[in-house]
Amino acid sequence: MSGRRDALRAALGDIVVLTEPAAVEPYRRDRALDPGAGVPLAVVLPETTAQVQAVMRWASEHGVPVTPRGAGTGLSGGATAIEGGIVLGTERMRAVRIDVDTRMAVVQPGLLNAEVKAAAAAAGLWYPPDPASFEICSIGGNAATNAGGLCCVKYGVTADYVLGAEVVLADGRAVVLGGPRLKDVAGLSMLKLFVGSEGTLGVITELTLRLLPAPPPARTVVAWFDGTERAAAAVFAIASRIRPSMLEYMDRISVNAVEDVLHMGLRRDAAALVVARSDDQHPGGAEIAVMLRAFADHGATEAFEADPAAGERFAQARRMAIPAVERLGPLLMEDVGVPLPLLADLVKGVEAIAAERGVAIAFIAHAGDGNTHPLIVHDPADPDLTERARLAYGEVMDLAIRLGGTITGEHGVGRLKRPWLAGQIGDDLLGISREVKRALDPGGILNPGVIFAAEVPDAPGEPAVPGAQ
Amino acid sequence: MSGRRDALRAALGDIVVLTEPAAVEPYRRDRALDPGAGVPLAVVLPETTAQVQAVMRWASEHGVPVTPRGAGTGLSGGATAIEGGIVLGTERMRAVRIDVDTRMAVVQPGLLNAEVKAAAAAAGLWYPPDPASFEICSIGGNAATNAGGLCCVKYGVTADYVLGAEVVLADGRAVVLGGPRLKDVAGLSMLKLFVGSEGTLGVITELTLRLLPAPPPARTVVAWFDGTERAAAAVFAIASRIRPSMLEYMDRISVNAVEDVLHMGLRRDAAALVVARSDDQHPGGAEIAVMLRAFADHGATEAFEADPAAGERFAQARRMAIPAVERLGPLLMEDVGVPLPLLADLVKGVEAIAAERGVAIAFIAHAGDGNTHPLIVHDPADPDLTERARLAYGEVMDLAIRLGGTITGEHGVGRLKRPWLAGQIGDDLLGISREVKRALDPGGILNPGVIFAAEVPDAPGEPAVPGAQ
Repeated sequence: MSGRRDALRAALGDIVVLTEPAAVEPYRRDRALDPGAGVPLAVVLPETTAQVQAVMRWASEHGVPVTPRGAGTGLSGGATAIEGGIVLGTERMRAVRIDVDTRMAVVQPGLLNAEVKAAAAAAGLWYPPDPASFEICSIGGNAATNAGGLCCVKYGVTADYVLGAEVVLADGRAVVLGGPRLKDVAGLSMLKLFVGSEGTLGVITELTLRLLPAPPPARTVVAWFDGTERAAAAVFAIASRIRPSMLEYMDRISVNAVEDVLHMGLRRDAAALVVARSDDQHPGGAEIAVMLRAFADHGATEAFEADPAAGERFAQARRMAIPAVERLGPLLMEDVGVPLPLLADLVKGVEAIAAERGVAIAFIAHAGDGNTHPLIVHDPADPDLTERARLAYGEVMDLAIRLGGTITGEHGVGRLKRPWLAGQIGDDLLGISREVKRALDPGGILNPGVIFAAEVPDAPGEPAVPGAQ
Repeated sequence: MSGRRDALRAALGDIVVLTEPAAVEPYRRDRALDPGAGVPLAVVLPETTAQVQAVMRWASEHGVPVTPRGAGTGLSGGATAIEGGIVLGTERMRAVRIDVDTRMAVVQPGLLNAEVKAAAAAAGLWYPPDPASFEICSIGGNAATNAGGLCCVKYGVTADYVLGAEVVLADGRAVVLGGPRLKDVAGLSMLKLFVGSEGTLGVITELTLRLLPAPPPARTVVAWFDGTERAAAAVFAIASRIRPSMLEYMDRISVNAVEDVLHMGLRRDAAALVVARSDDQHPGGAEIAVMLRAFADHGATEAFEADPAAGERFAQARRMAIPAVERLGPLLMEDVGVPLPLLADLVKGVEAIAAERGVAIAFIAHAGDGNTHPLIVHDPADPDLTERARLAYGEVMDLAIRLGGTITGEHGVGRLKRPWLAGQIGDDLLGISREVKRALDPGGILNPGVIFAAEVPDAPGEPAVPGAQ
């Protein structure tokens, strides 16, 4: 491999190339900790589009697989190194420019979501998409996964804000998709195809993002429940009547995990917590009244409007949920979504799976849009538990599919959810999607094994036990 | 051809098949009146997805090109019959179902946009996209072109409201893309690729649309200008500071053409009319004040808030503009868009082209999002004028491209704008788009000549003079 490394270094000139095992190690996996991760030939950290092109040209010429990587915060194994491949990290591509007059941001992919938000805010504007990991995830990764967040229930997902992109194709050509125009239907919408393609079609090197005026002030309502289905029913009652700007759910396990970290006085004995926000500016605050009424009607043990500081603490508690639950053990992280009328069925079904398999499943959710994160705790030292967790992981996705839902609402298929994809979208759609992938990446070098089974000879085959390390 | 027609009839059983010349004639062209339209083998009018599949299977087996057609109101020749091909009209597919609790509509493609709006409104909900032709255009055609409208400046385009679709592929297989879920990132976003693909990738047989709560009441401000560039500058000043729910522009030619029809007392001597709306519900109506101030600052000769009835008359005047200008003669209809700071440059540039070529170009625009419709009047009885109009048609698109804009903001490329597409998006992007098209329609039977040059032997080649009849 060292001869190939030397050839790569020689070809890439000034581009940062990491090959020492200790330097490479942090780039082998994202937060899904895919046990199937290989040892790459090198990690390359380009700073310009031209440098990304040079990397892709070399990889293409040599048939070497490339794993595009943002900040490595993905939860589905979408940034898993391939044995002998190249990890192409965008962390050094950090330019940002805000155009106040047209309310747009032009950013390189390595900028963090929080940095985009901050740059917009400094200009009096707002970039809405807000994954719970917004302080540590990259904007390029957000676009590659079509990331969601807490605001999506009212303000939509990343794709709704991407007006343009520059991408480098498998063969090293750079193309510009869309641009700083609110309406543009010239040709196939390759832009929207690339958003959410998880690095399988090209490498995003620049994004043009739509911004909104500064967000209106929001009010927060908090409700506690002693039954999870009642909480889910209250969520549906609210979302079907108004448009909350946030509508989040946490179960007892996640509430307790967060309380262990934050010590903010959360109710450890409650079955569920719902945190709702309204930024509706109609005089009279009718949405707050609708929320309080829905919580009362569905048997909340307590429901109240929080003052702004307390409201922010509850939102922060929700954002802390995944890191807090991670302290209980390694997680198999679900991202299933269902049509909102079936949210209570999903909650109940996941509880049944947890009971039957004898595993702890923390349940947090962007409940207002039906997108949920059951988090299955396991223990690598306990192979039997790990096997039961693995079975539960599949059963939760099977349940979501049966309920007419999705195996992934915002994290992406990555490598870990790939075996369930055909079950949701069907063999025909998977087949034509694969034809599109082949059309754009005939050599199959872009993120092989993600979304689609790998087609290059030296890429790993089926993923190993998800989450087992 | 009659043998083939008999075979088609036999294969399609109960499906309505039109073959008589008089019956076929109305289906040969859309409103672009493409002079290159052929005489199709037949017009088929299926009522179910299974019937659409039967048509596509037959066409695929026999290598016969298919022109998918909604209501035939397209303005770029996207629904132009191919000589010896099949026109597949969706006008009999008219089912609609509204789900109030999830705020979604499930519709068949033949329903008119206005009928979708009406069904939503009857349930207290709102389907925002509003092409000026909303009373006569089909929802399937809206999705196929990613249609825009007057509300897009604040509420986005058709793609922003399409959550799911059922499509029939070239070979007759039906696949479901997306569904009734607000977040779903399972696999490549084939749904968003199909929206705006102008019938080149498949036939849309069902759509799942996101609805909003009933629209808030809007207030209307009207301004008259004696200079077009001042009007464009006022538009930019407004759009860069607030989010109007409508921001429309009409020049002197279009104002006079509309006044000829509506006799509502429009100012025939003004250079430009701007109609702006705000549906902001903040107490105090700050947006109205911003609008009035911007109009005053940019030298409006008159600016005032219209009462609701008058406001609706002005909006109606804007919607009437294309039909009214069509009375002046056949039109070459542009749909160019530019980044908003360059709107005044586009206005000025089009005026220069009109003067230089000696043609009348009416200029109307969804000005707030930079999407404009210069309408070039010609006369088939005057070949010299028609040639100058044809040259101007290309020059306006070339100008938009030079200004970093698009040749089509909402109408689609169709057949008539195809020669300019590579100039905007580049050969590389056009090339990979074509590879995607080939991956999904290897026989090239779906709407050949639209977006991409035709690849089937019996399809016409380059379009003839656009608009000449």
